[in-house]
Amino acid sequence: MSRTVFIVSDGTAITGEALGHSLLIQFAEIEFAQVRIPFVNDEEAAMDAVLKINEAFEKDQAPPIVINTIVDGQISALIHDSKGVVLDLFLAFLGTLEDTLGIKAQPSVGQTHGLKDIDRYEDRMDATNFALNHDDGISLEFGKADLIIVGVSRSGKTPTCLYMALHYGVKAANYPLTEDDLDELRLPHFLRRHKRKIVGFMIEPDRLAQIRETRRPNSRYASLKQCHKEVDLADTLLRSEGIPVLHTTHSSIEEISSRVLMELGLQKEMF
Amino acid sequence: MSRTVFIVSDGTAITGEALGHSLLIQFAEIEFAQVRIPFVNDEEAAMDAVLKINEAFEKDQAPPIVINTIVDGQISALIHDSKGVVLDLFLAFLGTLEDTLGIKAQPSVGQTHGLKDIDRYEDRMDATNFALNHDDGISLEFGKADLIIVGVSRSGKTPTCLYMALHYGVKAANYPLTEDDLDELRLPHFLRRHKRKIVGFMIEPDRLAQIRETRRPNSRYASLKQCHKEVDLADTLLRSEGIPVLHTTHSSIEEISSRVLMELGLQKEMF
Repeated sequence: MSRTVFIVSDGTAITGEALGHSLLIQFAEIEFAQVRIPFVNDEEAAMDAVLKINEAFEKDQAPPIVINTIVDGQISALIHDSKGVVLDLFLAFLGTLEDTLGIKAQPSVGQTHGLKDIDRYEDRMDATNFALNHDDGISLEFGKADLIIVGVSRSGKTPTCLYMALHYGVKAANYPLTEDDLDELRLPHFLRRHKRKIVGFMIEPDRLAQIRETRRPNSRYASLKQCHKEVDLADTLLRSEGIPVLHTTHSSIEEISSRVLMELGLQKEMF
Repeated sequence: MSRTVFIVSDGTAITGEALGHSLLIQFAEIEFAQVRIPFVNDEEAAMDAVLKINEAFEKDQAPPIVINTIVDGQISALIHDSKGVVLDLFLAFLGTLEDTLGIKAQPSVGQTHGLKDIDRYEDRMDATNFALNHDDGISLEFGKADLIIVGVSRSGKTPTCLYMALHYGVKAANYPLTEDDLDELRLPHFLRRHKRKIVGFMIEPDRLAQIRETRRPNSRYASLKQCHKEVDLADTLLRSEGIPVLHTTHSSIEEISSRVLMELGLQKEMF
């Protein structure tokens, strides 16, 4: 079984895509073909979208699913007149919100991922630059960091830091535990003073070896023996320093990021 | 006016946060205080969440708004028994989907941003490493790139590439136009063969000077004169090479990413 899914939005379509993904993953046996139609801001763009939806109806011989996040009622109505089954974010929830808040919504088109709050946006860009400049021990100046992730090389520190910076505007630094650190079984002095904002990453040695192997095939660095050794020492080090530890092997960067923020009590809002 | 908003999820709460943000931005005059409660996977966690919601009700003397993306019906029901006004993603849309698909949903808890599709996840991690290794002209090997962004220094290339890599698993490289390139008014030879996958970024000189000023205060690099000159030359170069151009000054990286993918006809799915 397969079905076409349209994500129709007056902005980037990112919210609609997340929404659609959450819903459709509940129907694992069906194969969905996704078509993203962003920036539907006028009737012409809406009619183009309707045309595509109706074509898919003919092709699939079944109504396409349409995730609609268009704010403007008139443009949205055109989408509802298509041959798709329309799931409408604003239609579903805006009425309830207006009731409890006691005021009418003031349509703000395509702003969810727009540049509405320029200060918060710049925070995110600053945080992204910070993450790049404090990646992998490049800079050891951690005074301005919101948090510092430590762990052995390739335990998932870099993408997690970048994700947290881009999404939450969190200044996330990371530091790879060196052989020296592991031999001495203590955090280096420039990290000790920042203990309260450190989280440790742990990973299963098998998985670590696999990841390192694609990076440096047949190296000592990627050998299972070396990975076991580093992970064991890192575990001992982090425990003895009393650093909270997160296991990354079976988690996505979104899950890990969410856990890091929870662990450190950071309630940063997503953009 | 202010109101507390809870994002309650059995996973990362990322979908709920995007959903809440889209909806609440329509009520600009109200100040919302957001509390994220991820990983609500059992009744105990749900009762903890209910406690927090009811406390906010007492404090605000108004029902908190609860964005609920818990899949499990029994756990979700506990949230519905709180004193909040609950907007429920699955309750709102799952029935309609079951009707049109003709099958029942099979609850898949906390999987939207989980590690369900390991291949797609690894694509995203590979793409992130690719973006880091092909940032700012570090590597000029563009054969494996899905797309290449060119533009003057600080026009928004790096965060956009990282965003596209992390979200869409797109291998996005970027190349900063050098003074040599701008003087010769042509793309360097190693880019010419990849023309079909190049997008140019343009930025207003005033904004560029502002961004560069925070990086290198009082430098020639950040002077308005230099920024004007580089932007004018880049504009001429990109036009004469027939490269599609996107203006980044008034757009977020989400908007720019969405436009880049549209421009190049890449229909990559978001994770």
